[in-house]
Amino acid sequence: MTSLTIALDVMGGDFGPRITIPAAQRALEHNPRLHFLLFGHQAEIAPLTDRLDSELQSRVQIIHTEKTLNSDLPFLQAIRQSKGSSMRLAIEAVAKGEAQGCVSGGNTGLLMGLAKQLIEPLPNIDRPALTSLIPTMNGKSSVMLDLGANVEADSKLLCQFAEMGNIFAQVMLDLVFPRLSLLNIGTEENKGSPQTREAHQQLKLTNHLNYQGFIEGDKLMNGIADVIICDGFSGNIALKTMEGAAKNILSFFKKPTEESNLCRQTKRLLLRAIFYRYYRKLQQINPDRHNGATLLGLSSVVVKSHGGASNNAFFYAIDHAISQIEHKIPERISRGLEKLE
Amino acid sequence: MTSLTIALDVMGGDFGPRITIPAAQRALEHNPRLHFLLFGHQAEIAPLTDRLDSELQSRVQIIHTEKTLNSDLPFLQAIRQSKGSSMRLAIEAVAKGEAQGCVSGGNTGLLMGLAKQLIEPLPNIDRPALTSLIPTMNGKSSVMLDLGANVEADSKLLCQFAEMGNIFAQVMLDLVFPRLSLLNIGTEENKGSPQTREAHQQLKLTNHLNYQGFIEGDKLMNGIADVIICDGFSGNIALKTMEGAAKNILSFFKKPTEESNLCRQTKRLLLRAIFYRYYRKLQQINPDRHNGATLLGLSSVVVKSHGGASNNAFFYAIDHAISQIEHKIPERISRGLEKLE
Repeated sequence: MTSLTIALDVMGGDFGPRITIPAAQRALEHNPRLHFLLFGHQAEIAPLTDRLDSELQSRVQIIHTEKTLNSDLPFLQAIRQSKGSSMRLAIEAVAKGEAQGCVSGGNTGLLMGLAKQLIEPLPNIDRPALTSLIPTMNGKSSVMLDLGANVEADSKLLCQFAEMGNIFAQVMLDLVFPRLSLLNIGTEENKGSPQTREAHQQLKLTNHLNYQGFIEGDKLMNGIADVIICDGFSGNIALKTMEGAAKNILSFFKKPTEESNLCRQTKRLLLRAIFYRYYRKLQQINPDRHNGATLLGLSSVVVKSHGGASNNAFFYAIDHAISQIEHKIPERISRGLEKLE
Repeated sequence: MTSLTIALDVMGGDFGPRITIPAAQRALEHNPRLHFLLFGHQAEIAPLTDRLDSELQSRVQIIHTEKTLNSDLPFLQAIRQSKGSSMRLAIEAVAKGEAQGCVSGGNTGLLMGLAKQLIEPLPNIDRPALTSLIPTMNGKSSVMLDLGANVEADSKLLCQFAEMGNIFAQVMLDLVFPRLSLLNIGTEENKGSPQTREAHQQLKLTNHLNYQGFIEGDKLMNGIADVIICDGFSGNIALKTMEGAAKNILSFFKKPTEESNLCRQTKRLLLRAIFYRYYRKLQQINPDRHNGATLLGLSSVVVKSHGGASNNAFFYAIDHAISQIEHKIPERISRGLEKLE
C-alpha cells in the first residue's frame, strides 16, 4: 500500500487550525494511506494534533512557520512577500515532490498565482481553470469550469477548458462521452458575448467532444450537462449564486429561530419522517459536500477550499484532493491532450 | 379616476393567448382603471375574451394581426421584418401615446431592439438596462440591473445603471438612500474585471449615492443591498441561476411524483401545518411573484415577461408594469438625472 501525502496550508481560510486540523483528523481516520504535511504555526497546531491517537500522529508532520499570507496587500506585493508563508510552503512541497497535492482555504488569487509560478503547467494549456463539481437535482454532480481563475477568457481558452473538463468528468464522474455545454444568456446562436459565440462555433466542429450547445443559468442544477464551461467571472458568480440560494433555502430547515428546543426538534423529526426522500435530496445539494475547487491545468493537484468552510466542508475539500491524486487527474489530462496533437 | 392603458403583446411568450389573456383578465378584475390594447390574432383571442363579463370586455380592445416575430432569424433581419407584428404594434402604441406601457413575453433582444428604436430614450442614458425586483430571504425585494440588455458594460454605463437603480429602488421599494452594490467575484478592491473595478472607484466618489462596495453571488438574496448593479451577461446568469435553484428546491414541495393523490395531499397539508412560517417564506421567494423585467432608461414603461411564464407569473409582469406607470418611473428617473447635471 503506497502512501499518499497532502501538503496542508493549515493557516489558510477564515478559521485556520481550528477548522483545518479537525478536518484533517477525519480524513486520516477515513484513509489509512493518508499522510499530512501541516504548514503553519506550531503553537497553534500542536495542541490540536497532540489530542490525536498515536497512529494518526505518526502520519502528520508539522512544518512550523509564523508567516501567513497577507491578502490585503496588492496582488504582486503579496506574491513578492509570500516567501516562507504557510500557503507558499505547502505549494513548494508539492513542487518538490514531497507531497502529491495541496489543499488551502487561503486567498484564491494568491493560491493560483503561486501555484502557476511554482508548479509546472501542463503542455497545451495557456492558463489553468478553477474547476469544481456542482450538485445536481438528481443527486449526482456536474463539472463546472472556470470558477474564477480567469476573469476573462477568449474562445481558445474556453475550448481548452472544454478539453480539460471533458477528461475530468470522464474520470471523476465515470462517464463515457460526457455532455458539454457553454454557459450563456440564451440558447440561440446569436446570444452572448463574442468569445462565447466563437467558442460555440469551434466546439461544434470537434468530433471527439460531445458538445451540446449553450446552457442557461436556470438549468445548471438540472443535470442536463456533465461539463459546464464558462469564463471565470460569470462562472464564479453563477456558482456563488447557486450556493447562496441553496444555503438560504436549506437554512429554513435548520434555524427555527425563537422556538423552544423541543418544539424545534419535534418539527425537524416530523419533517424528516414525512419528507424523508426530499430531505435526503436537500442534503445532497448541500454545498458542503461539493467544497473544493481544483486548479485544473497544472501538473499536480492543487485544491482550494472555501475560506469560510466548516470542518465538514473542509473535509470534503481534502477528500476531493485525495480522489484526484488517486485518479491521477493531471497525468490523464496531459495524455488526453497529447493524443489530440 | 383617470384610466390606465397597457398594450399587450398577446402572442409573445411560449404559450401565447392561453396564458396572456387569463392573466390580463385577472389584472382587469384587480384594477378597475385598467384597459388593455390586445395585439394578436383575433381568431385566437376572441374566444377567450368573449368569455369575459361585459364590464371587463368594455375595457379591452383587440387589434388584429396575423404576424408574430420570428426570433429564429438573425437579429437585424428579424427587426427588419418586424413591421405589423404583435410585439412591434404594442410598442408602437406606447410610442404614439395610445398606451402608457407595454408588456411582452417575446424575445428579449428583439423587444429591446424595437423599444430602443421606437421609444424615446431618457437623456443622459447611453443604453437602457433590463431591471427587475429579485426576492430576498427577509420577504422583501432588491433591484437588480442589468439582466441581459447589455452583454458588456463599461464603467460609465455601470454608473448610469447605479443612478437609475437608485431612483427605481427609492420609488418602487419606498426607500430613502437605498444601499447600492456592484456584483463581483470578491469584495477586495483588486477583484474582478477592469470595468467593475473602475466603476467601483467612480461610485465610491459619489456623494448622493449610498454605495456600499462589491457584493458576491451568494449574498444576492440576503437583502444586504437594495440595488445590485452588473453587466447584462453576468446579471442574466446570476438571475437565472438563482431562479433555477429556487424553482428546483420549491419543486420538492410540489411534485411528490409517483405517490397517490391522497398521500400527496396529506403530506402537503401536514407540511403546511407544521411549517407554516417556512412555507410562507418559500412562497415569498417564488420566482413567479417577481416575473417582469423593465427596460429602464426609456421614456415609457416596457416590461418583459419570462417567455415560459405561467398565467400567475404573467399576471405579476402586468402588475409590475401598472405599478411603474402609476409611480411615473420614467419621469422620476429623468428628473433625478437632470438634477445631477
